[in-house]
Amino acid sequence: MPTTPKDKVKALVFDVFGTVVDWRGSLIRELTSFGRGRGLEVDWARFADDWRALYQPAMEEVRSGRRPWTILDVLHRESLLKLLDRHGIKGLQEHEIEHLNTVWHRLDPWPDVVEGLLRLKSRYIIGTLSNGNVGLLTRMAKRAGLPWDVVLGAEPARAYKPLPESYQRTAALLNLQTDEMMLVAAHNGDLRAAASTGFRTAFVLRRYEYGPDQKIDTVAEDPWDVVTDSFTGVADAMGCARL
Amino acid sequence: MPTTPKDKVKALVFDVFGTVVDWRGSLIRELTSFGRGRGLEVDWARFADDWRALYQPAMEEVRSGRRPWTILDVLHRESLLKLLDRHGIKGLQEHEIEHLNTVWHRLDPWPDVVEGLLRLKSRYIIGTLSNGNVGLLTRMAKRAGLPWDVVLGAEPARAYKPLPESYQRTAALLNLQTDEMMLVAAHNGDLRAAASTGFRTAFVLRRYEYGPDQKIDTVAEDPWDVVTDSFTGVADAMGCARL
Repeated sequence: MPTTPKDKVKALVFDVFGTVVDWRGSLIRELTSFGRGRGLEVDWARFADDWRALYQPAMEEVRSGRRPWTILDVLHRESLLKLLDRHGIKGLQEHEIEHLNTVWHRLDPWPDVVEGLLRLKSRYIIGTLSNGNVGLLTRMAKRAGLPWDVVLGAEPARAYKPLPESYQRTAALLNLQTDEMMLVAAHNGDLRAAASTGFRTAFVLRRYEYGPDQKIDTVAEDPWDVVTDSFTGVADAMGCARL
Repeated sequence: MPTTPKDKVKALVFDVFGTVVDWRGSLIRELTSFGRGRGLEVDWARFADDWRALYQPAMEEVRSGRRPWTILDVLHRESLLKLLDRHGIKGLQEHEIEHLNTVWHRLDPWPDVVEGLLRLKSRYIIGTLSNGNVGLLTRMAKRAGLPWDVVLGAEPARAYKPLPESYQRTAALLNLQTDEMMLVAAHNGDLRAAASTGFRTAFVLRRYEYGPDQKIDTVAEDPWDVVTDSFTGVADAMGCARL
């Protein structure tokens, strides 16, 4: 019998922004509601995309060592202040800025997520492997009903993805070897970095993560161990019974 | 109206060994079963107490800085090897030693724990603040059905209790101030150390943690915010509805 991923994998860990939650749709919904309540005329879809566009450059300052370890909530807030200025939004109070910044704590999952996670949890350890900080991920999970066994990622590992230490230290925190771990992600680059440290891989297509004109991550670019378009598809591939 | 703990507390974190789980009873049950299967004549209650007695000295090597950061599974294993020798138990295979060491991953909770945690989870973030490592605590929670929102403690904080950093860094990992945190523990010393960093405190009497002749932690030694003998009692005190 050939070995399959489910023969050796003990834990599945998940990219979160885009893979578990629809950050773009959630941001647009919350920002639009916020703006409407204050009579602000802003292109909130553009605002959401601009905010996300500042994500990688902000983390790169930390990855490169030019800046000491800084959690994502702080990076998000710095980007938010720049964008409020750029979009001409003035005079917000501190509690309103904090409310906007924590929209990242209140993102909604894709429709297949909770059912898929519950199935996977019956057989494997399931957890996050996100660049989001622990406080952010914990509050998101409570609100959205994400049944993680453990909240891990860049903050406990003290390394932002795709640095190899982010994957290696996450495995070590679970007393596992990297080939006993599977990363589930909608992003080929994340999966490549994980695979290079020994992780097994599951690609979940999220066709509209970046909106209707999405151009990246529309196909599995490498022969990942699992290729599907839902968490229930991952559960099927990993031999987890239906609920 | 006077303020009460539940007005400000956002997260309850729990000592685990003794407070959540009956380590002594669980060890004796598993060790007795293991010994019976191999015809070993050992005083397993004494073995369990000896194992636990090596716990503080082993951590003290790390707390003092004489030894670099080392997770509890490794410390437990070193103590186990000493005790097998001391009790004249020879010739065990590697998988048997590993099975014995991971008995700490398979401890049973006290009867009030799961109901109390589910009630508290409806209103607060709940998590561990244990000297156990993340892999140990994650497996224990899965087996015992402990519904943690987040698994924290000495390993993510890189400091064993009762060092102040273990409490302070746990609060920081949740984006909270120490006075928004409550430690739930059966040990007055743990609560004193937490309180000195600003934590709120709940003492849960575990009258038989150390067996029928228990002499320590039989009363609340300071005016803790909550004093009770069960997690459902903590839930009552913290205003959490019955299930």
